[in-house]
Amino acid sequence: MSATTSDEAPKMSRLLKLAQKFNCFYLNGLAKGDCRPFVVNGQQVGLISQNVLEHLLKYPEVFFIRDAEQGNQNIVELNPAFRDYSERSEQVDRVLREFRTQGVFVALKGWRNECYDVKSTTESLLKMERSATCMFGVRNYGVEINGYVRHPAKGLCIWLQQRSDTKQTWPGKWDNMVSGGLSVGYGIHETAVKEAAEEASIPSHLIKNLVSAGCVSFFFESERGLFPNTEFVFDLELPEDFRPENSDGEVQNFQLLPVKECLERVFAPDFKTTSCPVVLDFMIRHGIITPENEPNFTQIVELLHVPLQSLYTYRSTKPRCLNSSNSITNGGI
Amino acid sequence: MSATTSDEAPKMSRLLKLAQKFNCFYLNGLAKGDCRPFVVNGQQVGLISQNVLEHLLKYPEVFFIRDAEQGNQNIVELNPAFRDYSERSEQVDRVLREFRTQGVFVALKGWRNECYDVKSTTESLLKMERSATCMFGVRNYGVEINGYVRHPAKGLCIWLQQRSDTKQTWPGKWDNMVSGGLSVGYGIHETAVKEAAEEASIPSHLIKNLVSAGCVSFFFESERGLFPNTEFVFDLELPEDFRPENSDGEVQNFQLLPVKECLERVFAPDFKTTSCPVVLDFMIRHGIITPENEPNFTQIVELLHVPLQSLYTYRSTKPRCLNSSNSITNGGI
Repeated sequence: MSATTSDEAPKMSRLLKLAQKFNCFYLNGLAKGDCRPFVVNGQQVGLISQNVLEHLLKYPEVFFIRDAEQGNQNIVELNPAFRDYSERSEQVDRVLREFRTQGVFVALKGWRNECYDVKSTTESLLKMERSATCMFGVRNYGVEINGYVRHPAKGLCIWLQQRSDTKQTWPGKWDNMVSGGLSVGYGIHETAVKEAAEEASIPSHLIKNLVSAGCVSFFFESERGLFPNTEFVFDLELPEDFRPENSDGEVQNFQLLPVKECLERVFAPDFKTTSCPVVLDFMIRHGIITPENEPNFTQIVELLHVPLQSLYTYRSTKPRCLNSSNSITNGGI
Repeated sequence: MSATTSDEAPKMSRLLKLAQKFNCFYLNGLAKGDCRPFVVNGQQVGLISQNVLEHLLKYPEVFFIRDAEQGNQNIVELNPAFRDYSERSEQVDRVLREFRTQGVFVALKGWRNECYDVKSTTESLLKMERSATCMFGVRNYGVEINGYVRHPAKGLCIWLQQRSDTKQTWPGKWDNMVSGGLSVGYGIHETAVKEAAEEASIPSHLIKNLVSAGCVSFFFESERGLFPNTEFVFDLELPEDFRPENSDGEVQNFQLLPVKECLERVFAPDFKTTSCPVVLDFMIRHGIITPENEPNFTQIVELLHVPLQSLYTYRSTKPRCLNSSNSITNGGI
């Protein structure tokens, strides 16, 4: 370590570099200004880049550009004549299947036949093939479980999984013990329990100890598209003698690592970039990464919770389609 | 609970309203655009509102407005002719003492004779009377300790303190068990241990269990000024039979509350607004506030970690005073 003088730019720790890597779109992509809000039924649900837009405009009966009512930038709108959830879903699905056949988008090579519910703050607007959501910059929500052991000899240890080589995304990469996207019809806690059983065979007497521990938000970009991700985080303490076992073919290996080795692993090229935030959040909450050992501590914590809510604020002032089905109820503690 | 239709604005939970209250400047004040970067030795360290600026400009040998090199907005600069940390500190202190005598600022009625170290990312630039930092919108760092008990009958319980009626700020309000600002010469963990002894008489065999658990960042505004606060958060599990006792006269009462009662307490008008974030963060990390019981969960988590780092980015491109004393070393894990 050497003292820095005031004419040098501050040095960055490798943890800050990592936090900047999984926020590459938040920190660099956004400022380029070539993304437009994607608006469905008057409400912004995504961000669309120039290269995706060029293809969407070949379907003017489905997608079109419209001048924004607020601000300078125009928006990309799903045809507001589509009456409801099912018509919107069908129209978008038809276009996506043509793109898939044409092979124009890398993202659609990972077609999953699994649907994702595209929502505004008040309602579900359409369902969309999961692999396509990154083309539209739709906010993506998932669950991740930190499986950990308080080992008498090795101290705090973390279970990691190695993804199957046959997975569509990030094949063969190291990942958190359990993770999964939210699918239509499943709640957040329910998804965590389901994935824990499928991915790691966690028995019911152990999953009872699952604790909700917050969420991380970050905005990554890859050749597939945009990933404005929010992961709901759960911690699960496991007994020393338990070994997770995969039952759905999506995992090739599990490994229990002492926290320091786990921290080295996240810097390796074979760790899934978009799973790093949950590992760092765990290590911060459990006193492994601290303001004493990490000079960029506050910046890293902020980069684990970037304000995605402020990037999806466009709302039309025109009257919108009234549709109380699929609406989200709102109570609160 | 009633279903909302798509033509209504989404309802807000009372937790989201609270998160917006302690972020009133982040969400509303910033957008008004009447604050200018406060620049010392070429680096932004604060934000100055119009009403403070009017008084500063009466001391043109110390403060002046300068056209920004980047962007449209001009900046407020501390005279760059001041050579070093001690000259800057003395010059600012002289002006602040005159303001205090004149009685022009509410903030200075709470004069503490305690200094705060104003830093850039690379060095300490000057020390400033603590009560004045909110006039300059200087980022403020503190520590807070969540003292908690796993009670066999009452479940998870949290210790709160009631501040002394004679405290300069927030007298008589309920607050976290232990809190304190970082002062010149003290480290973060060191400050937490020192405050735990002074405020709550935590003995050394219990303070050993102190665990670093992250930080919260928010941006509050009051009649005193601007509060861009980052609080380093620590958790401390305490035995059921331990009772905190104050030894510095700054606390009039301690109370142990089951988490649900504690959650009600933060909504009461006699809870210190700027201490709410740490309570909410604790309840989120410990599975009390969850995405299942809080509809605005992700928004609240984002509002506990607003990107303060992006509000203090102005840097002059001109050569600055080289001064490697008081520089901050930068290593990282």
